[in-house]
Amino acid sequence: MVFNFYQCSFAPSISSMYLSYICRMQQLFSYEQLFNFSNAIFLKIGCSATDADTATRVLLSADLRGVDSHGVARLGGYVRLWQTQRINATPDIKIIHETPSTAVVDGDSGLGLVVAPAAMQVAINKALLVGTGWVSVQNSNHFGIAGYHAMMALPHDMIGIAMTNASALVAPTFSTEKLLGTNPIAVAIPAGDEQPFVADFATTTAANGKLEMLQRKNKPTPGGWVQTKDGSPSTDASELKQGGALLPLGGDREHGSHKGYMLGSVVDIFSAILSGANYGPWVPPFPAYIPMPENMPGKGIGHFFGAMRIDAFRPAADFKTNMDQWIRRFKTAQTIDGIQSVIIPGEPETAMEAMHRENGIPLIPAVIDDLKKLAADFSINF
Amino acid sequence: MVFNFYQCSFAPSISSMYLSYICRMQQLFSYEQLFNFSNAIFLKIGCSATDADTATRVLLSADLRGVDSHGVARLGGYVRLWQTQRINATPDIKIIHETPSTAVVDGDSGLGLVVAPAAMQVAINKALLVGTGWVSVQNSNHFGIAGYHAMMALPHDMIGIAMTNASALVAPTFSTEKLLGTNPIAVAIPAGDEQPFVADFATTTAANGKLEMLQRKNKPTPGGWVQTKDGSPSTDASELKQGGALLPLGGDREHGSHKGYMLGSVVDIFSAILSGANYGPWVPPFPAYIPMPENMPGKGIGHFFGAMRIDAFRPAADFKTNMDQWIRRFKTAQTIDGIQSVIIPGEPETAMEAMHRENGIPLIPAVIDDLKKLAADFSINF
Repeated sequence: MVFNFYQCSFAPSISSMYLSYICRMQQLFSYEQLFNFSNAIFLKIGCSATDADTATRVLLSADLRGVDSHGVARLGGYVRLWQTQRINATPDIKIIHETPSTAVVDGDSGLGLVVAPAAMQVAINKALLVGTGWVSVQNSNHFGIAGYHAMMALPHDMIGIAMTNASALVAPTFSTEKLLGTNPIAVAIPAGDEQPFVADFATTTAANGKLEMLQRKNKPTPGGWVQTKDGSPSTDASELKQGGALLPLGGDREHGSHKGYMLGSVVDIFSAILSGANYGPWVPPFPAYIPMPENMPGKGIGHFFGAMRIDAFRPAADFKTNMDQWIRRFKTAQTIDGIQSVIIPGEPETAMEAMHRENGIPLIPAVIDDLKKLAADFSINF
Repeated sequence: MVFNFYQCSFAPSISSMYLSYICRMQQLFSYEQLFNFSNAIFLKIGCSATDADTATRVLLSADLRGVDSHGVARLGGYVRLWQTQRINATPDIKIIHETPSTAVVDGDSGLGLVVAPAAMQVAINKALLVGTGWVSVQNSNHFGIAGYHAMMALPHDMIGIAMTNASALVAPTFSTEKLLGTNPIAVAIPAGDEQPFVADFATTTAANGKLEMLQRKNKPTPGGWVQTKDGSPSTDASELKQGGALLPLGGDREHGSHKGYMLGSVVDIFSAILSGANYGPWVPPFPAYIPMPENMPGKGIGHFFGAMRIDAFRPAADFKTNMDQWIRRFKTAQTIDGIQSVIIPGEPETAMEAMHRENGIPLIPAVIDDLKKLAADFSINF
């Protein structure tokens, strides 16, 4: 389940939303408990201590920020990929080609949770030397939330960019075939006194996690989220199971779906064709039980990372002064009746993280059951 | 008027659409005639021969590619900006800060049509040396179509990226205030035997030109394009004149408008806060009769350009082989009933350019009248 403030059409105060949220979610777990458990699992599958720590940190950043679909809820999924030998727990991650501002990294089938921060670090190192760094990654796996990797740039006074392709769930405009993943883009931009600007979004109208949430509640989707297997408009939240597809941001042609299709395509090409990974309908699926596509043209999943040093353009202090003014102008803009304020990208997730660190992270029963099963399988306490 | 194949919900063959198109548009002009005329106008306002040639080439690339709203239809607009001394016909365009992979360019209030190609060339030159080049521009003006500048990278076997901010017509999600421009993004990617992939799109549901087209026909817009001055949903094509706003790609929160808002914001920040140009509600308007915003924090309009050498990542031949496979797979994908094929970004514009070069460029009577008036004012034949 993905939860963020945007889901609330009337954007009430953080605290009242949070209360209703934890009421629904029931059981709370401390960050430390989930960290220690996930870390132990990664060690059990053979990760080094350093890699287990990194993987856990990336995975749990999703739970902290309220992107529950990409956090511990996926821990079992990673383990099952390792069990089917699609994930190598001791990868030899290396640069296979580079120039002063670019690199291609081979993830050696490692956890994307480990490969991605390593590749983003290469981008940051290059930016320190020549102003910007750009890294395309082949032979990787699911990398958690894009926002984590983009945000690695922030402490260096850099803008961070992260994107990844994913297995095909999305039909391009005018097609009935699923040829693109939800292919997210994240952009993290430093500010001064204000919190940083952090955009992190799938290039579809709605993320798959939101669809699953409606399915559980037996509710229809709004229009423009999904289509039937024949390409007709639909509001059936289980449409994907019946051969239908998610739709690119915009929903239909009249509302700009060709723009979402173009964005998702750019993410696919930067992540996979620049690196030599798989693209389009050939991207390996996350669920281990789904067979791999035939005639795959590349290696694993692809990512793309960028880091731009602010002072490669302007003094960082001047930039941050302007960013603070930008953020304050938008935050204090006049709102539609009933809306408290315009939301700055990243603001709800930062507030959510503070609350989750203080009060604990809520998990739904299905996730708790999955973690208990993992605990039993690996003889770890949970 | 913007014309492209996406506007046709049933995507009939190019030739039948083109015939109905020119029937509606009536009068055809050869590229050479429009080139010579526009070039003469730019010389008359004091541009150097080289700058007049560049400005004309960029301006007419819009007419050739079917983006009529950004072509000769705007020639008079540029002249009026020069008349009010907002455009400097003899700018000293210079790099004011740089690193091996970055630069900030000061456009010295020049025509964006001239400043932008100069800045994109800086990005290309840097990419030749260190793999990629990234240039943020301050103190510029409207730069024509973003696609032209991004496509400058293609002959160098580079990926080109171009974006610009623009005066505020768009309300962020939840706001009634116009704080962002239509802020377009273009990405041009080389292919092998196939035509290059060229995405070029406003980060709104629909471009302003489409709204104007519906206004002329006295037709309503689809939902999700505009809102009233109070932020209520509207389908009135003249809503902007009544204090309303264009909406970010997605249209409303339920359909992902926060994603369009994030994209438009990233374009604004990369173009203007990285460079020291004006941003948000302070971006200077294109129409010369609209007063400048008060308390402007920067200089002119901002742009952002990127160039990435393909072989800074992989051998260009391997990349192009994969791009050709990507394009063919998408082009031959199964389609929704009544649709001929999935469209590859840039494909309709390339076909349109070939037809316009052969048959001439159609102009509507209002544009012809405007050009005749310019001809009279500057004592040039038209």
